[in-house]
Amino acid sequence: MTAHLTSQAKLRVPLLSALMAVSIVAAAASSRTADPLASWNDAPPKKAIVAFVEKVTRPDSPDFVPPAERIAVFDNDGTLWPENPVPFQLAYALDTVRQMAAEKPQLREDPMVQAALAGDFATLLEGPHHDGLLRVMALTHSGMTTEEFPARVEKWLATARHPRFDKPYDQLGYQPMQEVLSYLRANGFKTFIVSGGGADFMRVWSERVYGIPPEQIVGSNARTKYELRSSGPVLIKTTDYLFINDKEGKPVGIHEFIGRRPIACFGNSDGDKAMLEYTTIQNPRPSLGMIIHHTDARREYAYDAKPKSSGKLVEALEDAPKRGWVLVDMKQDWEVVFPFEKRQEHPVR
Amino acid sequence: MTAHLTSQAKLRVPLLSALMAVSIVAAAASSRTADPLASWNDAPPKKAIVAFVEKVTRPDSPDFVPPAERIAVFDNDGTLWPENPVPFQLAYALDTVRQMAAEKPQLREDPMVQAALAGDFATLLEGPHHDGLLRVMALTHSGMTTEEFPARVEKWLATARHPRFDKPYDQLGYQPMQEVLSYLRANGFKTFIVSGGGADFMRVWSERVYGIPPEQIVGSNARTKYELRSSGPVLIKTTDYLFINDKEGKPVGIHEFIGRRPIACFGNSDGDKAMLEYTTIQNPRPSLGMIIHHTDARREYAYDAKPKSSGKLVEALEDAPKRGWVLVDMKQDWEVVFPFEKRQEHPVR
Repeated sequence: MTAHLTSQAKLRVPLLSALMAVSIVAAAASSRTADPLASWNDAPPKKAIVAFVEKVTRPDSPDFVPPAERIAVFDNDGTLWPENPVPFQLAYALDTVRQMAAEKPQLREDPMVQAALAGDFATLLEGPHHDGLLRVMALTHSGMTTEEFPARVEKWLATARHPRFDKPYDQLGYQPMQEVLSYLRANGFKTFIVSGGGADFMRVWSERVYGIPPEQIVGSNARTKYELRSSGPVLIKTTDYLFINDKEGKPVGIHEFIGRRPIACFGNSDGDKAMLEYTTIQNPRPSLGMIIHHTDARREYAYDAKPKSSGKLVEALEDAPKRGWVLVDMKQDWEVVFPFEKRQEHPVR
Repeated sequence: MTAHLTSQAKLRVPLLSALMAVSIVAAAASSRTADPLASWNDAPPKKAIVAFVEKVTRPDSPDFVPPAERIAVFDNDGTLWPENPVPFQLAYALDTVRQMAAEKPQLREDPMVQAALAGDFATLLEGPHHDGLLRVMALTHSGMTTEEFPARVEKWLATARHPRFDKPYDQLGYQPMQEVLSYLRANGFKTFIVSGGGADFMRVWSERVYGIPPEQIVGSNARTKYELRSSGPVLIKTTDYLFINDKEGKPVGIHEFIGRRPIACFGNSDGDKAMLEYTTIQNPRPSLGMIIHHTDARREYAYDAKPKSSGKLVEALEDAPKRGWVLVDMKQDWEVVFPFEKRQEHPVR
């Protein structure tokens, strides 16, 4: 019996070795062909991402971080997809006000509705609390159930097109950032959106567009109200206890929803400065902070201190060198910006 | 060359078959011995859990639920661990007030601190907003950073003992519920705590005790305040925007933090009624609602309408038959309550 087993064992070793060798060759071949960050040019930002991921995931690395603590946070507007000519959620709000005013003409008596219909942003943004904008957001984002709201957003997404790129908004996720999301997840990271946008708005499409489930969305939000109706339980969206998940609110939102410090943070404006600080300054774990700098007027947009309708990038840009935050120059560092560019370059025949 | 490969292939087949046969036998043996719900008696609640899990996970089942939507929510106090003689977080608050009063005697001038030191719950709970209790919670749960607070809780946990069971509090997770958590996760569920307890308090030990990470804790919370100090960024715990995640607040918290309806919900008091409703009534997905009924005065406690110091169980008990919520009779349905009972029954010699 022992002899028999031994002879089997002897046979097995070279066979398994051969099988393993084949697997290793296959894996090496596939890793040669499948660069996980293929849309990034071979420049410092790409190298910084790969070096960071390798450092925190190699079990023998002094900088190894256990998978449970591999939290990566991403701003959305301007970081994962464009924020011009207006942030997409604002486009939704303006389109919806237009539709509501057509259905209920008495709404046109509201001066803020008039301003929205006229595209008069100066009036909407007047005052320290931007009352006009808040009125438009309240009209379009509250008063309905948490099941009605996503149905409306889906309906809008199905027909609305970006005015410049003439694509559905949800097809405009930046290709290089999609690759970062996938690459981090393949390396045991949990990816979260931490955005000033509305959580309920983002949750409608975040799983489909970025592979990020609703429970990993940290965004602006307001309290809902529970009711048990004869048709079943509902939650009504209100504007009570409005929380704006921006600037100093971002680390606050991160703590409230995630409960631990991220080790990687991607942003593009001063609205992300506080979460970049929270991620990278005196973090007992190694960390990576990255700023997407919009430098490409031809393929996307070029702006920082003077954005069209979103937060400016001045202070975070100034702090980047002393904080060690890596700047991504979209024009220099991204081989393609949008997925549809990629398809045009390699057409399927 | 072809002949050589073929002869290798011929050799490989019986060897691999033999290896596979060994694995299958081993797996069958282990599934016979390892009942995932071993601490549950073979009664209706155990059968209901297993039937539900099989129904939603079998790919050919008409009730199949994709893994991303397998959200299970658990109340904590009285559902995953005891809530007597007082909820453990209250024990922490009272012990901490005692220690603070010893360090800063002027605190004793506060009548609510006096009531806490005297164990005078009637005074602490007086008034519609339980001002005394809130004062004690504010004293012990705010004013420090989000790094100092967990350090204090850890220190307390390391020495505090439950007055009746004489064990560290974090060793009192109910063994049968630990098995439910593991069983659900092994079947692709994401498990969340949805508790009236403080999120920051639970996050200190939830991963170690229940295998539930901080980002899957939905609890009562208040806003933190971000500061960039010379020592690094901090978040200061405040009592602003206090949100009590109980009763109608539970579905509200579930929507805010998770963003989709759970398909399984476990609770033990009327504080869980709204989330049981939200999980089970008119849910387009199949669902399971379960109520832990404290019926075992010998091994744990027996109470429902008249709890010692926690929420009562009256309305949810009344609604259970018409809602199809499964009642767990702790005395009848649980073979053991605590992990340490199990060790006593099968001592290692």
